[in-house]
Amino acid sequence: MDLNYRTNYKLIKNEIIQLIRNAIDEDLQGYGDITSKYIIPDSSISSAYIICKEKEGAVLCGIDIVKYVLEEINLSISFNKNKNDGDFLKYKEMVCNISGPTKDLLAAERTCLNFLQHLSGVATITSKFSKITSKYNIKIADTRKTKPGLRKIEKYAVFCGGGYNHRFGLFDGILIKDNHIIAAGGIKNAIEKVRPHIPHQLKIEIEVKNLNELKEAINSKADIIMLDNMSPKVMSEAVKKIRKSLPDCIIEASGNVSLETVEEICKTGVDIISCGFITHSAKAIDFSMEFT
Amino acid sequence: MDLNYRTNYKLIKNEIIQLIRNAIDEDLQGYGDITSKYIIPDSSISSAYIICKEKEGAVLCGIDIVKYVLEEINLSISFNKNKNDGDFLKYKEMVCNISGPTKDLLAAERTCLNFLQHLSGVATITSKFSKITSKYNIKIADTRKTKPGLRKIEKYAVFCGGGYNHRFGLFDGILIKDNHIIAAGGIKNAIEKVRPHIPHQLKIEIEVKNLNELKEAINSKADIIMLDNMSPKVMSEAVKKIRKSLPDCIIEASGNVSLETVEEICKTGVDIISCGFITHSAKAIDFSMEFT
Amino acid sequence: MDLNYRTNYKLIKNEIIQLIRNAIDEDLQGYGDITSKYIIPDSSISSAYIICKEKEGAVLCGIDIVKYVLEEINLSISFNKNKNDGDFLKYKEMVCNISGPTKDLLAAERTCLNFLQHLSGVATITSKFSKITSKYNIKIADTRKTKPGLRKIEKYAVFCGGGYNHRFGLFDGILIKDNHIIAAGGIKNAIEKVRPHIPHQLKIEIEVKNLNELKEAINSKADIIMLDNMSPKVMSEAVKKIRKSLPDCIIEASGNVSLETVEEICKTGVDIISCGFITHSAKAIDFSMEFT
Amino acid sequence: MDLNYRTNYKLIKNEIIQLIRNAIDEDLQGYGDITSKYIIPDSSISSAYIICKEKEGAVLCGIDIVKYVLEEINLSISFNKNKNDGDFLKYKEMVCNISGPTKDLLAAERTCLNFLQHLSGVATITSKFSKITSKYNIKIADTRKTKPGLRKIEKYAVFCGGGYNHRFGLFDGILIKDNHIIAAGGIKNAIEKVRPHIPHQLKIEIEVKNLNELKEAINSKADIIMLDNMSPKVMSEAVKKIRKSLPDCIIEASGNVSLETVEEICKTGVDIISCGFITHSAKAIDFSMEFT
Amino acid sequence: MDLNYRTNYKLIKNEIIQLIRNAIDEDLQGYGDITSKYIIPDSSISSAYIICKEKEGAVLCGIDIVKYVLEEINLSISFNKNKNDGDFLKYKEMVCNISGPTKDLLAAERTCLNFLQHLSGVATITSKFSKITSKYNIKIADTRKTKPGLRKIEKYAVFCGGGYNHRFGLFDGILIKDNHIIAAGGIKNAIEKVRPHIPHQLKIEIEVKNLNELKEAINSKADIIMLDNMSPKVMSEAVKKIRKSLPDCIIEASGNVSLETVEEICKTGVDIISCGFITHSAKAIDFSMEFT
Amino acid sequence: MDLNYRTNYKLIKNEIIQLIRNAIDEDLQGYGDITSKYIIPDSSISSAYIICKEKEGAVLCGIDIVKYVLEEINLSISFNKNKNDGDFLKYKEMVCNISGPTKDLLAAERTCLNFLQHLSGVATITSKFSKITSKYNIKIADTRKTKPGLRKIEKYAVFCGGGYNHRFGLFDGILIKDNHIIAAGGIKNAIEKVRPHIPHQLKIEIEVKNLNELKEAINSKADIIMLDNMSPKVMSEAVKKIRKSLPDCIIEASGNVSLETVEEICKTGVDIISCGFITHSAKAIDFSMEFT
Repeated sequence: MDLNYRTNYKLIKNEIIQLIRNAIDEDLQGYGDITSKYIIPDSSISSAYIICKEKEGAVLCGIDIVKYVLEEINLSISFNKNKNDGDFLKYKEMVCNISGPTKDLLAAERTCLNFLQHLSGVATITSKFSKITSKYNIKIADTRKTKPGLRKIEKYAVFCGGGYNHRFGLFDGILIKDNHIIAAGGIKNAIEKVRPHIPHQLKIEIEVKNLNELKEAINSKADIIMLDNMSPKVMSEAVKKIRKSLPDCIIEASGNVSLETVEEICKTGVDIISCGFITHSAKAIDFSMEFT
Repeated sequence: MDLNYRTNYKLIKNEIIQLIRNAIDEDLQGYGDITSKYIIPDSSISSAYIICKEKEGAVLCGIDIVKYVLEEINLSISFNKNKNDGDFLKYKEMVCNISGPTKDLLAAERTCLNFLQHLSGVATITSKFSKITSKYNIKIADTRKTKPGLRKIEKYAVFCGGGYNHRFGLFDGILIKDNHIIAAGGIKNAIEKVRPHIPHQLKIEIEVKNLNELKEAINSKADIIMLDNMSPKVMSEAVKKIRKSLPDCIIEASGNVSLETVEEICKTGVDIISCGFITHSAKAIDFSMEFT
Repeated sequence: MDLNYRTNYKLIKNEIIQLIRNAIDEDLQGYGDITSKYIIPDSSISSAYIICKEKEGAVLCGIDIVKYVLEEINLSISFNKNKNDGDFLKYKEMVCNISGPTKDLLAAERTCLNFLQHLSGVATITSKFSKITSKYNIKIADTRKTKPGLRKIEKYAVFCGGGYNHRFGLFDGILIKDNHIIAAGGIKNAIEKVRPHIPHQLKIEIEVKNLNELKEAINSKADIIMLDNMSPKVMSEAVKKIRKSLPDCIIEASGNVSLETVEEICKTGVDIISCGFITHSAKAIDFSMEFT
Repeated sequence: MDLNYRTNYKLIKNEIIQLIRNAIDEDLQGYGDITSKYIIPDSSISSAYIICKEKEGAVLCGIDIVKYVLEEINLSISFNKNKNDGDFLKYKEMVCNISGPTKDLLAAERTCLNFLQHLSGVATITSKFSKITSKYNIKIADTRKTKPGLRKIEKYAVFCGGGYNHRFGLFDGILIKDNHIIAAGGIKNAIEKVRPHIPHQLKIEIEVKNLNELKEAINSKADIIMLDNMSPKVMSEAVKKIRKSLPDCIIEASGNVSLETVEEICKTGVDIISCGFITHSAKAIDFSMEFT
Repeated sequence: MDLNYRTNYKLIKNEIIQLIRNAIDEDLQGYGDITSKYIIPDSSISSAYIICKEKEGAVLCGIDIVKYVLEEINLSISFNKNKNDGDFLKYKEMVCNISGPTKDLLAAERTCLNFLQHLSGVATITSKFSKITSKYNIKIADTRKTKPGLRKIEKYAVFCGGGYNHRFGLFDGILIKDNHIIAAGGIKNAIEKVRPHIPHQLKIEIEVKNLNELKEAINSKADIIMLDNMSPKVMSEAVKKIRKSLPDCIIEASGNVSLETVEEICKTGVDIISCGFITHSAKAIDFSMEFT
Repeated sequence: MDLNYRTNYKLIKNEIIQLIRNAIDEDLQGYGDITSKYIIPDSSISSAYIICKEKEGAVLCGIDIVKYVLEEINLSISFNKNKNDGDFLKYKEMVCNISGPTKDLLAAERTCLNFLQHLSGVATITSKFSKITSKYNIKIADTRKTKPGLRKIEKYAVFCGGGYNHRFGLFDGILIKDNHIIAAGGIKNAIEKVRPHIPHQLKIEIEVKNLNELKEAINSKADIIMLDNMSPKVMSEAVKKIRKSLPDCIIEASGNVSLETVEEICKTGVDIISCGFITHSAKAIDFSMEFT
């Protein structure tokens, strides 16, 4: 598994290169690294490696971004990765070793680690959910609750952690929520307004909050039904009703999804569970660049 | 307290406007919001308000960014804020109310909330630290361990939570760390190499790991000494030694700083405690846009 | 009908403002409009109007872009539109009148007309197709065969001409074509490979060239079938087979679609006819800015 | 003849690289090519070639842009061109062959073809005019009636088709048109106002609509006279008058220039014929990427 | 005379806004103006004025840019100009007065003055040359020897100082110099190669170094002849020869042009004198922002 | 000494590449170099060298930028430098030789020379000051009085000329000037307001105009004192007072610094002399590209 999961190397790199440049720029403005400038000789060359310092281990994500950061700082830095994105890392396990001008390694250090610690944080928490849901053959999906500007790489981290990517934005999926329903005057009206006009390649997903709304959604033959914030008991009943009337309908659960609640939700028999926590509240994983 | 904490409104806005545009662009590409397009009439106007849904309350950060996001979507949306950045929010407290074309409010909703939930998360965790350290008249400071591209707004969130901003990047502060010391051949050498060349307006900060290194730092008359990863006992001893020999020296503690450990560190008598957790691992605060 | 057909004014404007600036920049580099500079006094004010000079009439598209171009040149130019995008224009009919500094009107003239002539060209040819297909309650759809960089506004022009917008790009619709089928080892394999992995909100469209391929597509329960380059006779047979076995399947015709052939294709009973000609080969509509 | 017709490779490439990136971006946003992602294995490698599918043949333009598009997608795609820009292509003639990762070829396919089909369309229609005018040793010139943002590459296509490039924009040529004449109070006044102030390296071109205006232009010693929308008979008379009084004056014909009328215009003896049709209304040439 | 000398306000402003933003950004990165932040209250409002501190006086240039800089910092700053670009300023004369938030005036101060001091420097030295050459009815022209990125505003400053703008770049004027002549194999060959191909709206300028080259240039009927680095005596002779054989030919002098030599060059009777010194070596004019 | 003086090659290059592109773009818009296009064959290859034509010699600065400009024009141009930035050049000394397509060398010529002539101008005047101040072991420092957008490369030129770089902008140094003092209500108040809030890594510099202000600055224990516009006699007295009361205080002189006055200022015993002239009024150094 590598960063190149979408289509190809060059495209992905183009997309994140601006992100990388902005991150480097935050650290190196004005006169640049003013500490190293006066201490480290231009001719000094060093080797270093990056290790995971998380006692419980972690799922790696961002190793190719580390490479791009280094390339952006100095093309002559050598880089060898020992692990790939998606790999599980044990405590103190080495993820890559690098060598090049000491000044350049120090200039790149924090930016490399900041990408790694955040993305591996997202991948690691996702993998914890995925370990549970996969036993039930259920997908754990991300949401649009991402950090501003980091959606693409956070969704990649979800993928690396074994998660499933929900729609990218408002433009590539129809999801009728409460405010749409109110505006349209009910679920039935909403679906009837949408059906003749949507891109013919898209299905219609509708969010329901209770069994009354569910009934209307079933009658309107929704293609996908999202059960929002239901108790496990109600959700089980909802799943049964849908399976009976609309056997091809995909069922998604959302709301109040945590490591404590997810297994109970799995037992209701839904197809997909979506969860904002894995992107908006992931704890960073501790990495460190050690010089040899 | 407002976003305009640095110099002035226009500059701050210019700086984050690209961030806002990128965030909007993640959500609205291709044909844009394809759900609302077919359901919500162009003429539909709505009012809505944003509330905090965190049971324990939270410190608000990002309310002016919400305004800019709305302006970016449609200048005609009206916006009134009920709370300012830095204010404490109780559960279900309203932070602003807005009104405008329904389609535009829906197009802006997720982007607004994504900024709010992250920045308020940083401000809230910072305020928890600050409540403890301020009793001891000690500053809780951020680090360079920020999300790529979000450093400036995350450091603003730290400020809103009552924290203190450490150097912005490698360019505006001298901090001699272990790798510099190795490269220079010892603490004394490092400081002597730096002193004649650094910008004359900067002090020299040096990181020490034990009492041996401390001794060398004191002998070299460092302006600021960072005590890194010391036990409270050793740290107390270090503080005493510094106060005795270098009464003007500023003392910073770092490493292993958590809500559990911070009070003990305060008791050692340092001046500043720096902490990566508040920017790299803050849990998001739950906000919601409710239509009326 | 106006340019604001997607979501809202500000977003659409942001998207095309760079396009407008590039177009202005092509005309005005170096010392700018060197002819007017020496002839037209700075204080000269003029009124002008834009008229359609197409003898057969045309469908208007781009009138709001004209407004944006003028704003970009000088915010003080007044602009009143007499017609909206999608309106039919008779020969010599006025579409807008404007007034402002003469130099500014002359600087803006060509850029305004270049947008108008191209977009109205696309809308006009689309409306000719649409007039035929709508009699049969069939949609005439665009393709991805657009001018580089102009896809969004060309698809908007198709919409103004009464056409239907197919997927925007490779990212918002699944369409399995011959090369995918070869790579996957047959239609059945292709669909089976795709089904478990695609975003759950998307349907599967597959392109078939003959009745053998069609059979396989039907057996694999494709959601949408595109009949590519079939004779009307074969197409009619194909439509019958699909309606019988897959009543919910959407049928699209493509290939060799012209004003001469389109009615015959309509008679086969397909749902959608897609056509590259309307975007890649539309003849420009003649407009002129007349000073009063 | 190649794209590098202006000055050099790197400059031209820099200029169109943004155009290429925008075009790729139209096709590949969000999750990218979602069809190939699930069907084509990452390891699959293909060869393909691009052929001209125009029965009457065509003049090639844009082959180097195809190369740049491929480079932009993946630097490792191999590319060999069999034809150069300006070459005449017979039906089914191959213009280049390429090989590389199948996913990357499919991601690049439409963008490559969209450039080729449009630019070759402009080159081909230009060559039809040029075949006629060159018999009379007359130049067929383009105008500023180009697609927004595509002026440079469309003018390059005109050049490839054997045409002559008129001024690039308002900044590199003086052309006094009707509105300038009105503003200046007559042709004589206009020329007298311009002459002392224009860059000394520029000639003065003036547009005249009839023999009265011509007389004034001749008396004012215009360097270049454009005969606008005159009948062949009047135009012939105008040419004679100019040749007699101003032997060094260059004569340009414009207005109502089509493949039907151009030969008659040639017979009037003008030097240059300018024509908007070749850039604003060129029909696309059909190309196809065939996998082997 | 104002900045809007080319075509119009908005265009000029767009062109230099990026320049202004870059200049502001050089001064205000990271945490911004860290001195004022802690001293000046947010609520503090000040008035200030900008005065010329050059004892000999100066020609003003850049006053509208000052306005744009202030707008860029804070739209609410009020600005009134007392002088226009091109005006002569006496010692201590006020050029504008401004008022607004003190922090914002201080943030803008250096950027405003840096534009003013440089552009007024160029305008002032130009006016000294112009005072001499205008007695002889000769134009003093700039060259392409400008500061990187500042060409447009430096040429505007030349214009404000009473100078004449030569071609903007390599793209809007034909100038055949020594290296072209060598490559073409002589002056005659060079001109003959160029004449049939150049844009028909351009004249041909050729640089000659001595009377032999001049002879060839005259024989080839150059439209403009540049006499490069000739002694006044030789130059006088050259002028006579040209006037005799090519009465319509424009004569330009260049090389070794200084305030000491320019009058002697004027006496040779050339039409235009071009001079690099006025843009590449102008001394800055002293301005100061005084708070009241 | 080379351009890579800050941290590393890639960073420096990224920073100035946009500057280089803008400079090239000023010269080559529209149809590009229209003179060479018609005279120089595409196949023509030339060698050339750049020499210093300053009779008194000069200090070189910008040689690596020449290389980047050439790379930007055509990667295949070969470039060998004979001198490094900071080297002293004698009259007619060669700084580099280059070879490549003649058209490309001519397209790059002016941009290369414009960088060289300006930066070497700054380095050369700086070295004249430095030769004097270094005898007294005093640093000659630059100011923020730079050309808009060129601050970084001008400060690099100061460094090449043996000068010392003062703060880069308002963001990396505290300097309390007259307007701050007024706003704060006196020097003592200003320093007391600043001290508890500034980044702990920064010293406080204060500007004083006379001995009264000096007294207050000394009492407030300023870290750095700038003596502004004092006569040598007063300055000497000020230095003595400071050395006596604040032995660690750094003393900077500014105001009215010229080659005539600088030695007298040195004799007062200050540590640093800052001077705007070296960046805002440096005379260009004459360079020329000679073809062989």
